[in-house]
Amino acid sequence: MIPEGLSFASRFDKVTGSAIREIFKVLGRPNMISFAGGNPSMDALPNEVCANIARDVLLADGKRILQYGATEGYPPFVESLVDYLASTFTFPVSKQTVLPTTGSTSGMDLICKAMLNPGDTVLVESPTFLGNMQTLNLYQSNLVPVESDDDGVMLDKLEAAVIEHKPKLLYIIPTFQNPSGRTLAADRREPIAKMAAKYGFLVVEDDPYRDLRYCGEDIAPIKAYDQTGHVAYMGSFSKIISPGLRVGYMIANEDIIRKCTIGKQGTDLHTPNLNQAIIDQFLRRQLLAPHIAEIGVPYREKLNLMLDELDSFPKGTKYTRPDGGLFIFVEMPETFNATTLFDTAVESGVAYVPGTFFYPDGGHHNTLRLNFSNSTIDQIKQGMKILRELFEANI
Amino acid sequence: MIPEGLSFASRFDKVTGSAIREIFKVLGRPNMISFAGGNPSMDALPNEVCANIARDVLLADGKRILQYGATEGYPPFVESLVDYLASTFTFPVSKQTVLPTTGSTSGMDLICKAMLNPGDTVLVESPTFLGNMQTLNLYQSNLVPVESDDDGVMLDKLEAAVIEHKPKLLYIIPTFQNPSGRTLAADRREPIAKMAAKYGFLVVEDDPYRDLRYCGEDIAPIKAYDQTGHVAYMGSFSKIISPGLRVGYMIANEDIIRKCTIGKQGTDLHTPNLNQAIIDQFLRRQLLAPHIAEIGVPYREKLNLMLDELDSFPKGTKYTRPDGGLFIFVEMPETFNATTLFDTAVESGVAYVPGTFFYPDGGHHNTLRLNFSNSTIDQIKQGMKILRELFEANI
Repeated sequence: MIPEGLSFASRFDKVTGSAIREIFKVLGRPNMISFAGGNPSMDALPNEVCANIARDVLLADGKRILQYGATEGYPPFVESLVDYLASTFTFPVSKQTVLPTTGSTSGMDLICKAMLNPGDTVLVESPTFLGNMQTLNLYQSNLVPVESDDDGVMLDKLEAAVIEHKPKLLYIIPTFQNPSGRTLAADRREPIAKMAAKYGFLVVEDDPYRDLRYCGEDIAPIKAYDQTGHVAYMGSFSKIISPGLRVGYMIANEDIIRKCTIGKQGTDLHTPNLNQAIIDQFLRRQLLAPHIAEIGVPYREKLNLMLDELDSFPKGTKYTRPDGGLFIFVEMPETFNATTLFDTAVESGVAYVPGTFFYPDGGHHNTLRLNFSNSTIDQIKQGMKILRELFEANI
Repeated sequence: MIPEGLSFASRFDKVTGSAIREIFKVLGRPNMISFAGGNPSMDALPNEVCANIARDVLLADGKRILQYGATEGYPPFVESLVDYLASTFTFPVSKQTVLPTTGSTSGMDLICKAMLNPGDTVLVESPTFLGNMQTLNLYQSNLVPVESDDDGVMLDKLEAAVIEHKPKLLYIIPTFQNPSGRTLAADRREPIAKMAAKYGFLVVEDDPYRDLRYCGEDIAPIKAYDQTGHVAYMGSFSKIISPGLRVGYMIANEDIIRKCTIGKQGTDLHTPNLNQAIIDQFLRRQLLAPHIAEIGVPYREKLNLMLDELDSFPKGTKYTRPDGGLFIFVEMPETFNATTLFDTAVESGVAYVPGTFFYPDGGHHNTLRLNFSNSTIDQIKQGMKILRELFEANI
């Protein structure tokens, strides 16, 4: 009970955080095979390398690392991050257009803080990442879903929604999308950047999975086509080094970065220096590219295995075939209910995330999200067998 | 320039972040003696100890540390933190009433997020900590100053303000206050907790300096008198271990902690595990108490030296005589202007923070804040000599 006479802020009216939390609570049970979550494989977390790096940086520059840092970032990391981004992308990046963040969750929070008043409309993919939907809901934004096909957001639907709803933001995960695993087609990217400039909204491009590509060619981000500052790009080291370190970054127009920096002064003052220094050494010691190549091998194998397993699921089972990332999205026939079946699945030893949580309007109970990165080959075989039998019995 | 058609959120209308930033920019100049900032002494930052701890924890529990963590905190740290708090305070503390935060700045942000709607009134000391005033302003709260004397907030003024303004929160730094260095008298603490319960507002007790006591006896926090959940206590390891690690905590009513936890899911998901694990080892290895005792010796010496130097400042100079913390607050005669004199002081090689920035209503240009922790004995002697001569010439 809240103490007498107190009340919570109205930004929580639509946010309970409860349903999905109940799901994640069961993941700790012994012998649970979890296709829920979006965790990297434990094998992919370089703790020995980080142990040595952490020690090295605290001995070499420990006084600066343990002291208050600049909101703008730990200077060596800002430098190596700018170099890394400049060598990764075709568009210019500078200290003035980059801000380290405490994971890209905090980047999302800062962009919302900078841009959104209560009631402002934000266009989102449908389905989309539930965590950032919660952040958007905490800013009391009006979420309007835009329809996607296998090539991502449909341009005609997007433009119609822009004209009808006059959004402040479009929130989009263009590459190996969460939860769908889909990738926005290359030829839809420039038109989205142009549309943002034409109609005056900000594209928030959330791109944490881009380096986890298991086949096909890299595609330039929407940000690469941004001539006018209408695209803010959010990147993260969570999926390619460690989520527990909480280091991400955003790239945006200088004035947007400035506003987010002022917002960040009031949120966490700065991303912890030690965590920035560890990622900095990953970049300076040129450990990142080989590490990504190394973790990609088992991830590809697990993805392909899960796709193979899905081939023998009951007739009417549809699923995405991602070129990378961490997720496969499954759509069962309309009569199937993945939400109500969840408890039974858990009792049988397998967890997934019911797809309904990824839809701004709910519904879509016939869908679910499967993660393959955080299970072993054996767990995938065993867990998919259990799911197949369960789905066959409940279709 | 913000890209065409975009606009920033109205929460920034009263927040520019610029004046104080300009001040902090000059601190990087070579040979600058800085009495600005609130930084621990470089000598007080235990980087070698942290280097070994960081390596140890990443080798011993690195997979869990580098993986996504719980918003509720890194489990070993939550355990050791609860034990530490239970042995420090007389009131009960449990896992359900504690939340690790990314520095207490993030604790403040989360409490505002949980409790404040735009336009809600927050009572603050006058002067008070400018950083958290910025956080409060970003939540568009209506800041109402309450008068203090040498024993902190005056109870009759506080009750009158509560009755008149019906505040949602009282934000208060009871011990070695920032910027004044004053401590709220022991016999004013219980009445404030009772007043919060009677009138239905939340006391946000910000207590990062309490362990930096150089004389006198510990005083129980306001939270110790809280029978009803109307006090939220924010603590921090920034001043006693490292601000760059960004680890703090809050203690509050279970439902308030729950709401802040949901808010934190959308802000940074969790405080980085590694940083929590380092503080955890400080507690488990019983390094904290001896470290605090060790850093207190030079801090006491520096405080006393700065007070001695102030004794010979021009007639009419008033200043606080703190029993601990990091700051002395100076009040010059009304005709003196510490704000306009700042540039000249910097040209002479000494920086301070003009007091005006700590007042919700501005003004008070005859005041300034001096920090003694982050300068050497020689710098204090030299810097105070420069200030004395400058003030004599400008009084």
